[in-house]
Amino acid sequence: MPQRVLSAELPAHVGETVLLHGWVHRRRTLKTVSFLVLRDRAGLAQVVGADLDGHPEETAVAVTGRVVANEVAPGGAELVDAAVTALSPPAQPPPFDLYRPEVRAGLAVQLDAAPLAFRHPGRRAALAASAAAARGFRATLDALGFTEIFTPKLVAAATESGANLFGVDYFGRPAYLAQSPQFYKQLMVGVFERVYEVGPVFRAEPHDTGRHLAQYTSLDAELGFIADHRDVMRVVHAAIRGMVGEAGAPLAVGEEFPAVSFADALRIAHADPDEPDLAPADERAVGEWAMREHGSEFVFVTGYPLAKRPFYTAGGNSFDLLFRGMEIVTGGQRLHRYDDYVAALAGRGLPLEPYRSYVDAFRYGMPPHGGFAIGLERFVARLLGLGNVREATAFPRDRTRLEP
Amino acid sequence: MPQRVLSAELPAHVGETVLLHGWVHRRRTLKTVSFLVLRDRAGLAQVVGADLDGHPEETAVAVTGRVVANEVAPGGAELVDAAVTALSPPAQPPPFDLYRPEVRAGLAVQLDAAPLAFRHPGRRAALAASAAAARGFRATLDALGFTEIFTPKLVAAATESGANLFGVDYFGRPAYLAQSPQFYKQLMVGVFERVYEVGPVFRAEPHDTGRHLAQYTSLDAELGFIADHRDVMRVVHAAIRGMVGEAGAPLAVGEEFPAVSFADALRIAHADPDEPDLAPADERAVGEWAMREHGSEFVFVTGYPLAKRPFYTAGGNSFDLLFRGMEIVTGGQRLHRYDDYVAALAGRGLPLEPYRSYVDAFRYGMPPHGGFAIGLERFVARLLGLGNVREATAFPRDRTRLEP
Repeated sequence: MPQRVLSAELPAHVGETVLLHGWVHRRRTLKTVSFLVLRDRAGLAQVVGADLDGHPEETAVAVTGRVVANEVAPGGAELVDAAVTALSPPAQPPPFDLYRPEVRAGLAVQLDAAPLAFRHPGRRAALAASAAAARGFRATLDALGFTEIFTPKLVAAATESGANLFGVDYFGRPAYLAQSPQFYKQLMVGVFERVYEVGPVFRAEPHDTGRHLAQYTSLDAELGFIADHRDVMRVVHAAIRGMVGEAGAPLAVGEEFPAVSFADALRIAHADPDEPDLAPADERAVGEWAMREHGSEFVFVTGYPLAKRPFYTAGGNSFDLLFRGMEIVTGGQRLHRYDDYVAALAGRGLPLEPYRSYVDAFRYGMPPHGGFAIGLERFVARLLGLGNVREATAFPRDRTRLEP
Repeated sequence: MPQRVLSAELPAHVGETVLLHGWVHRRRTLKTVSFLVLRDRAGLAQVVGADLDGHPEETAVAVTGRVVANEVAPGGAELVDAAVTALSPPAQPPPFDLYRPEVRAGLAVQLDAAPLAFRHPGRRAALAASAAAARGFRATLDALGFTEIFTPKLVAAATESGANLFGVDYFGRPAYLAQSPQFYKQLMVGVFERVYEVGPVFRAEPHDTGRHLAQYTSLDAELGFIADHRDVMRVVHAAIRGMVGEAGAPLAVGEEFPAVSFADALRIAHADPDEPDLAPADERAVGEWAMREHGSEFVFVTGYPLAKRPFYTAGGNSFDLLFRGMEIVTGGQRLHRYDDYVAALAGRGLPLEPYRSYVDAFRYGMPPHGGFAIGLERFVARLLGLGNVREATAFPRDRTRLEP
């Protein structure tokens, strides 16, 4: 048996007999010859032989044949005199055709058959971009002296707000799924100064929108010994640049992102100056402004009113990053003194007790620090122009969807 | 203000005035001079000045001074004429001294104060090794053409067994925390051929042992178009080699790991030949045998009896990898035909319905495939000779521990 090669490697093997593994992407039979398009993890390959049509689309196959140059074949080479062996029983017809340029089915139908829908090269590209973006995030932060951490997803108290918590029966006592690694990454600043985590977070979102998921992948970072939130924003810029770069998107990320104050953002969006937050339409208006005025797909909004930010926020030193008019990053400087935490909780009418083990850590010398979180699915959806975050994750979880 | 440098960089700055950031690790006052050992993310630095003892241990500080060469200082350089500024209020005394060679407190006391205990350089090293091992795992698999995936942790049915499931209230209906990404990684073989995930898994372990956690980090991989489980074992070997290499452990990983059959493993351990699984003592005996006979810290045991392996296992094509006499990896070839899944579930008396969306995917052409999972905390504990997996994770979760 010859060595397996990938579809994309065929041009380097012209004249040789090789083995391809993959799926029957498409078959076509003419009078004297049959064609088969094979799909593997690297792409598509054209296969020509005498009798190739016995295997329905999506059957997993092994194909041996001779590689010849052919200008009109994908990559400039194809397999001829091919023999095909099925590696599993003939595939049933999928609920939608995977060989068409676009999947002709609604999103709900595709999500019901997610393991199949993502075989489509176009849809697969979104998941590949997620993997690449996560790689770019990690590589950037590794190079900046950050250490990866792994924190608990089962917690005793809410980190963000009590509103959208999933309850868990934890050996007979109540626990919750972590809405973020916020407290843990702050505590770990005391150990490593600079930490990051790539992991799932959980929000029992009651709303069914195109930008919310009940579980999403959060790219979290936190760093100590900062002057203020602008030190954090510089790391955000580096991380985004690394993510865009690895994802190979045709998108210029400038030397820095423009920034506007929250008050200016409201003015740009012609919103009520007393609004405590930006509505989605406001974010779109600010995004358009950034493109118009700065030619930037990204724009920071800084200094959100404290009332709408979590209790651990240090004064007005907060920011969001909008990407094409949607918030994909939120961050800021945090409180770092024990007394400030006690006051901040009291000021919000929150009890100290559930936060005791977190707040106590600030008695032992925590430097000024801050951090941020990037929603991976939102980032990828914006990057690829997908209308719904559910297209940027293989198996989305929402109010109605728990399978597959 | 001079540029900040790290403790480890001092030797490159002799003669310069620099800024250090970090924590007061230890202070010592002699008659005319005071010493201070500063700890930052890179290590320790010796600081000498006139009046440095005003800041208790663990206070976060900024220190400016002149770098001079000093053979007896860590790294061969120290800071003199130093001025210290506290960046937060004076630290309270920690519940145990962090400047001693070992933390003098029981594990439970340390875990209660985990954010502090992991500031100790020795304990911090275990978490740094975790980060390095995960990096080595990913880099190895990236180079082998694997794609990272992010799968749901909220699921409708058990993946491994119904015994140790955490129940979640999912918008009013029952759901569970995923015990593994098993089904999802298999389904994604149909998309990317080769996939991996680094993420949390959840087991409601009723036992309080030194090798079990209620949440641990699972390094999962799955690959298609394999001949049998030995193709999977080769990837395990590469991954472990990459992990040991990145963690910088003084441990030789040979060109391949020795392997024994399950029957031979029972014989080596002098166990009853009818035993369906290896007990911890048996694993230790096999580990000692591998060191004695092959000089290897690692040994594969292959062909476990099917009764003790999950229903998706393909015949006897299963394996565990023991590291210093403890199972840290489990894997094997999986079933890949729809009919085989239906038969396997029926054979175990399991209903098909909860597994429908998983099993159905095998109607659409799945190649022969297999995979494995490495427990990160167990790996690091074995690598560093830690007696308890709780020493290899910052915030362990077990039957009694939900905080910090």
